[in-house]
Amino acid sequence: MLIPTRRTAEGLDADDSLGKFRERFLLSEEILYLDGNSLGALPRATVDRLDKVITQEWGRDLIRSWNVNGWLDLPRQVGGKIARLVGAAPHEILVADSTSVNLFKLLAGALGIRPDRRVILSESDNFPTDLYIAQGLIQLLGKHHRLRTEPAGQIAEAIDGETAVVLLTQVNYRTGALHDMASLTTHARAHGALVLWDLAHSTGVLPVDLARCGVELAVGCGYKYLNGGPGAPAFLYVAEALQEELRTPLSGWLGHVDPFAFEADYRPAPGLGRFLCGTPGILGLAALECGVDLALEANIDQVRWKSMALGDFFIALVEEAGLDLALVSPRDARHRGSQVCFRHPHGHALMQAAIARGLLGDFRAPDILRFGFAPLYNRFVDIWEAVAILGEVMEAAN
Amino acid sequence: MLIPTRRTAEGLDADDSLGKFRERFLLSEEILYLDGNSLGALPRATVDRLDKVITQEWGRDLIRSWNVNGWLDLPRQVGGKIARLVGAAPHEILVADSTSVNLFKLLAGALGIRPDRRVILSESDNFPTDLYIAQGLIQLLGKHHRLRTEPAGQIAEAIDGETAVVLLTQVNYRTGALHDMASLTTHARAHGALVLWDLAHSTGVLPVDLARCGVELAVGCGYKYLNGGPGAPAFLYVAEALQEELRTPLSGWLGHVDPFAFEADYRPAPGLGRFLCGTPGILGLAALECGVDLALEANIDQVRWKSMALGDFFIALVEEAGLDLALVSPRDARHRGSQVCFRHPHGHALMQAAIARGLLGDFRAPDILRFGFAPLYNRFVDIWEAVAILGEVMEAAN
Repeated sequence: MLIPTRRTAEGLDADDSLGKFRERFLLSEEILYLDGNSLGALPRATVDRLDKVITQEWGRDLIRSWNVNGWLDLPRQVGGKIARLVGAAPHEILVADSTSVNLFKLLAGALGIRPDRRVILSESDNFPTDLYIAQGLIQLLGKHHRLRTEPAGQIAEAIDGETAVVLLTQVNYRTGALHDMASLTTHARAHGALVLWDLAHSTGVLPVDLARCGVELAVGCGYKYLNGGPGAPAFLYVAEALQEELRTPLSGWLGHVDPFAFEADYRPAPGLGRFLCGTPGILGLAALECGVDLALEANIDQVRWKSMALGDFFIALVEEAGLDLALVSPRDARHRGSQVCFRHPHGHALMQAAIARGLLGDFRAPDILRFGFAPLYNRFVDIWEAVAILGEVMEAAN
Repeated sequence: MLIPTRRTAEGLDADDSLGKFRERFLLSEEILYLDGNSLGALPRATVDRLDKVITQEWGRDLIRSWNVNGWLDLPRQVGGKIARLVGAAPHEILVADSTSVNLFKLLAGALGIRPDRRVILSESDNFPTDLYIAQGLIQLLGKHHRLRTEPAGQIAEAIDGETAVVLLTQVNYRTGALHDMASLTTHARAHGALVLWDLAHSTGVLPVDLARCGVELAVGCGYKYLNGGPGAPAFLYVAEALQEELRTPLSGWLGHVDPFAFEADYRPAPGLGRFLCGTPGILGLAALECGVDLALEANIDQVRWKSMALGDFFIALVEEAGLDLALVSPRDARHRGSQVCFRHPHGHALMQAAIARGLLGDFRAPDILRFGFAPLYNRFVDIWEAVAILGEVMEAAN
C-alpha cells in the first residue's frame, strides 16, 4: 500500500462537509491539537457570549439577571439542548456541578431504589473518578455495599441478582474502546439492575440514543467534545420513569420544590429539578451553552463518520510509516470512540518531545500516548502532520 | 433629632477612606445596589482577567494551561488568599464546588470522626441549604442520626454529649444577627462537639479569626462580599489539626494523592487536597480570585466600621422619616452583619416598587425587606437615596 501523502489529506479535507466548522473556533495555526478529548477548543461565539454575561448581565443587571436574563433556567435550558445530542427528552437532562458530584448523586439515588442489592459493578479500567466516587459512597454507607470490578469483556456475565448498579463509561478513557450500550443496558435491566452510563467521551462526538437503549441513568462532561471550557459544568440524565422515586443526598436549596419559600424542611422538587444542589456557576453554564449550540448545528452521523475516518487515517499513517508504536485502541473504528492510543515504553518522553514541536496529545500512565479527534475542528492534514512529527521525535530519540 | 440631609451623607462619603474602591467596580449610576449580599458587583479587573483566561489561556494555550497557566493550582491559590481574610493558614482553605456541596463533605467528614454521637445541632432559622444538606446526609446514613434545631439564643445550652456537630451560619441570612463565634466554638469544643461555621454572609465584610476562635471546620460563599460572580465557586476550611483524619465521601479523582497515576483505588491526598472532587471550573475560579484580591487591598477593620455605619445610618433615616417598617435586625451594630432587615405585611409589593425605581434589595418570605451593605462600593448617599425611594413607594402604596 502506498503511504498517503499530504495531498491525500488535503483531498480528504476538501471533501469534508464539516470542514466549515473549524473557522467557528479560535484556534492557532501553530499547534496541532489532538487533545480535544481533554479540553475542547474555544468557540468564537463563546467569547462574545461571555463578554455579554460578564459586563451586561452581571455588571449592569446584577441580581436581576437570575430572572430577567434567565440565569435560573440555564441548568434546564442547556440540559434540554444536550438532550437532543444523546436521545433524551429535554426534561431528562440537567446541567449541574461536576461529573464526579453527579456520579455521587445518581449512584446514591440508585442504591436507594435497589435496597436489597449490595453490589456496584464496574469495569476494572473505568476512569478512576467513577471508581473513587463509588468507593467513597460505599465507605460512607458503612461497607454494607461493595464495588466489584471486572474487565470490559466480562461485565455482562458478572451481572446477577446482587447487582444494584452497573457503572460504565461508554468509551474507555485510555483505550477508546466502545461498549455496546444497547445490549449491556438490556442485559442489566433483564437482571433487575440499573445501569449508570458515563458519557464523558461520547457526548457530541458519536450518536448516543439513551431512550432507544432503555438507559435510565447517565452523567456526562461539558469540557471535552462539547467545548464548554475548562472545568465546564457537567450534566446528569435521569429517565422520566425514575425521576419521582430517585432521591439525591445532595439536597441543596435549589433542588427544593420551592427554593424561595425558605422552608425549614427539604422537599424535593418534582422531576429532575431535585438534582440541582447549590447555586450554579453562570459563567461556566453560559460558555457550555455556546459549545452545545455549535454541536447541535452539526449532523452527528457526519461527525461520527469523520471521527472514525480520522482515527483510521491516523492508524494507517503510523503503520505505513513503520513507527514503533503498539496500537492499544480497537482497530475496527465501529468499536472505538474518537481517540487512538498507542503504547511505547518511552511514551512520556515522546509525548513531551511532540508537545515541544506543537503536537498536543495526552500521555496516560504508564506508557500510553493518546490522541483525540474532534471532528468539528480537526482536519486530515492535522493527522498527517501529527504523524510526521511523531516520526521525527521517534527518530530523534533513537 | 434632626433628619440627616443628603449633604450629611455626602460629608460622610467625603471622609470615607474606602471611597476610592467604588471606582474599581463597574457599577451603573442609575441603580442603588443594596443587594451585594446576594450577588456582589463586578470588579473592573475581573473583565480583563476573564478576557485573558478565555482568549489566551483557553483559546491559545488550551490543555497546557493546567500547568503553564497554573489552573491546577487555582483552588489552593485562591483558597490561600481567602485564608488571609478569615484568620486561617493558607493551606487550610480550598476553593471548590458550591457551599452546599462543601457542607456535605465537611458534615459527612465530621460525623465520621464523632462516631458515637448522633446529633447535628443547628439553628431553626439557619439558611435552608444548611438544614437541607444535613437532612439529606442523615437520610442517606439510614436515620441513625438526627437534626436538632433550636432558636439562636438556645444553641449553647442545647450542646451536650450527644452533639456531634454544631452547624451554624455566623450571620443570619434573614435578620443579619451575628453569632458570637469565639464563645460558641469554645463551648462546643468543651463538650466534645465540632462546630461547622457557614461564613456566607461574613467573609470579606467583617473580621473573622478562625484560628483565634479555635474553629475547626467552615465553609463560605464566593459570590457575595467576595464579588466572585454569579454562582462563583465556594470555599471550605479544615483546621490543620483535623486534616489528616477527616475523610470526604465525595472522593473524586482530583482529591486523590496522585490523580495522574490513574490508580484503581482511592487514596486521599494529604491535607486539604482530598476535598477537591471533580475538575474545577476555571472561569469561576479566575473571577473569584479578582474579587478576593480586591478585598485583600482593603483594611477589614475599616470595612467593618463602614459596614456598621451604613447600617446605623439606614436605620436612623428610616426611623427619623417615620416609615412604617418594623426593624428585624439587631439595633446594636456590633451584633449585626452587613445587612438591615425590616418587616412589612406588604413587603413583597414594596420591594417590587422599589426595584422599579432603581433601588435593588431583596425580599425574603414571608414579609422581610432585606438591604445589604457592601462597604467597598456602597456610599452613604446611596443609603440616603434608598430611604428616600422607600418613603416614596410607601407613600404611593397608601
